Amino acid sequence: MSTPFPAQPRIAILGSGALGCYYGTRFAKAGEDVHFLVRSGRAAVMARGLRVKTPTERIQVKKAQVYGSPEEIGPCDLVLIALKATANDQLKKLLPPLLKPGTVVLTLQNGLGVEEPVAEVAGAENVLGAICFVGCIRTAPGTVNCSFPGLVLIGEFGRPAGDRTHAVAALFTRAGVKCEAQNNLEELRWRKLVWNVPFNGLAIAAGGITTDIIVADEGLRQLSRRLMEEIVDAAAKFGHVIPRSFVDIQFDRTAKMGRYRPSSLIDYEEGREVELEEIWGEPVRRAKTQGVPVPRLEMLYWLIKRLLAARRKPHQRD
Amino acid sequence: MSTPFPAQPRIAILGSGALGCYYGTRFAKAGEDVHFLVRSGRAAVMARGLRVKTPTERIQVKKAQVYGSPEEIGPCDLVLIALKATANDQLKKLLPPLLKPGTVVLTLQNGLGVEEPVAEVAGAENVLGAICFVGCIRTAPGTVNCSFPGLVLIGEFGRPAGDRTHAVAALFTRAGVKCEAQNNLEELRWRKLVWNVPFNGLAIAAGGITTDIIVADEGLRQLSRRLMEEIVDAAAKFGHVIPRSFVDIQFDRTAKMGRYRPSSLIDYEEGREVELEEIWGEPVRRAKTQGVPVPRLEMLYWLIKRLLAARRKPHQRD
Repeated sequence: MSTPFPAQPRIAILGSGALGCYYGTRFAKAGEDVHFLVRSGRAAVMARGLRVKTPTERIQVKKAQVYGSPEEIGPCDLVLIALKATANDQLKKLLPPLLKPGTVVLTLQNGLGVEEPVAEVAGAENVLGAICFVGCIRTAPGTVNCSFPGLVLIGEFGRPAGDRTHAVAALFTRAGVKCEAQNNLEELRWRKLVWNVPFNGLAIAAGGITTDIIVADEGLRQLSRRLMEEIVDAAAKFGHVIPRSFVDIQFDRTAKMGRYRPSSLIDYEEGREVELEEIWGEPVRRAKTQGVPVPRLEMLYWLIKRLLAARRKPHQRD
Repeated sequence: MSTPFPAQPRIAILGSGALGCYYGTRFAKAGEDVHFLVRSGRAAVMARGLRVKTPTERIQVKKAQVYGSPEEIGPCDLVLIALKATANDQLKKLLPPLLKPGTVVLTLQNGLGVEEPVAEVAGAENVLGAICFVGCIRTAPGTVNCSFPGLVLIGEFGRPAGDRTHAVAALFTRAGVKCEAQNNLEELRWRKLVWNVPFNGLAIAAGGITTDIIVADEGLRQLSRRLMEEIVDAAAKFGHVIPRSFVDIQFDRTAKMGRYRPSSLIDYEEGREVELEEIWGEPVRRAKTQGVPVPRLEMLYWLIKRLLAARRKPHQRD
């Protein structure tokens, strides 16, 4: 934290799925110095550039700086990790060429335990995490349809926000993304699980259903509430106090989303990796270390794990 | 219980699915006076008779006494209910024409709460229940493939076994079915749930899997055990002491069954009614009256209920 974060940072983006393309395109359009690692569909992205469609904008970056390996990119000031958490075993190979002293690594990944593998490679003191509330789908290489631009919350791994947290948040804001620096990243992650665990989970486990069906089904609605309460109870043991009113508002919020197809369900149905361990497995393991009973969460974890095992082999994605 | 059970009873069999045909064919072959209510496929059964194949026998009854309505059968000494429990709302119409003072009604149905609707029509004092451990599939009208002849346990509804219980059990024995009269029908029903709840349930909820997969999957195996323990705890509150060793042996027993497809999974996948309330719903409700927590059982109930609701409309079956 001694070196101040540069005003015009050199930025690398790892992963060219929906999130990597969405934020990366915005950064590039805002004139930032962005370098994309694109491993599949690179020729298409080089030829056609990057395209983002939102409900109010069409953004195009004709000439993106696209690379096939991190060595070609070289050291940066900021690395955004937009890979699926299920690909985190590749970080040992992908990250080092992008690092120099003080490089900030921001993971955009979902769930619990996603900062730890980054910290192992980049050093805990350099790790930030983002919680992205956003609705994005990659429709083709470099092409993203963003139905809900939402909000990004950024925090430090195991520390309150500092100057660089605000500097990184400002970068998002300048690129047209609503963004806030936050003091308690871990608590935010538990809060996001309050929604993700039941809605992403039951969407898969109850037969491939949208959130409106979960909200309307008497049993699943009650089950969602119990799952949320298990998360709240576990979070409390780690010092994160999530009020019961936060549970209540999830249902109204979700009802307003209509026939929403949670991202894990999309991944599941399209044969892509699902963040099983980060969303369901890790919360179970952490709750158990504190002796908090999470019978429904654990049951959901086991069911989804089995459903994933039975599915055709997921194809690789970067 | 005042009138002794006749030596050569007039028997009606309601329902011409696998169980009704299997036991009915054996009764007919043994020379009993059996009358079958067959509502779908009656012409085929009249033309071709009844056929049962077991691992060691082929049984054929060329001329079965087949009827289209209970009025044509008229009063009997013994009525076997081999309808799905989900059809029990029809008993008010189907049973009365078969009854006279002292008619014994034996339900072969699975799960909890299956005697009550029979008692409402026939009188509690006339009701018996059977637990059938048997593997049967109806392959065509009147035609049954029995892979596992198994065992029938017969008890009285709310009373210990008496003379007529033994008389009915003897009827099965004479027809070549291993059968025992038992004193505690309710406890037997809870014991059968120890297997049925997890194995029939997870076979459906974990994506349509056979029992060998449940036994081999670390998570599902542990989950099955937890579900069994919830059933054991609930049963205990009703005075039925099921030892933990009974839970242990379920896994060895099931492992020996190989790639077994539980009956509820077959019903589910073939679009037939599933005994949702009898196997999962009623145990949840009974446990709750005693304040026994059954979080996993309830979750399984809700998930299967939703999966059934999403399925194409089940076709009628008798």
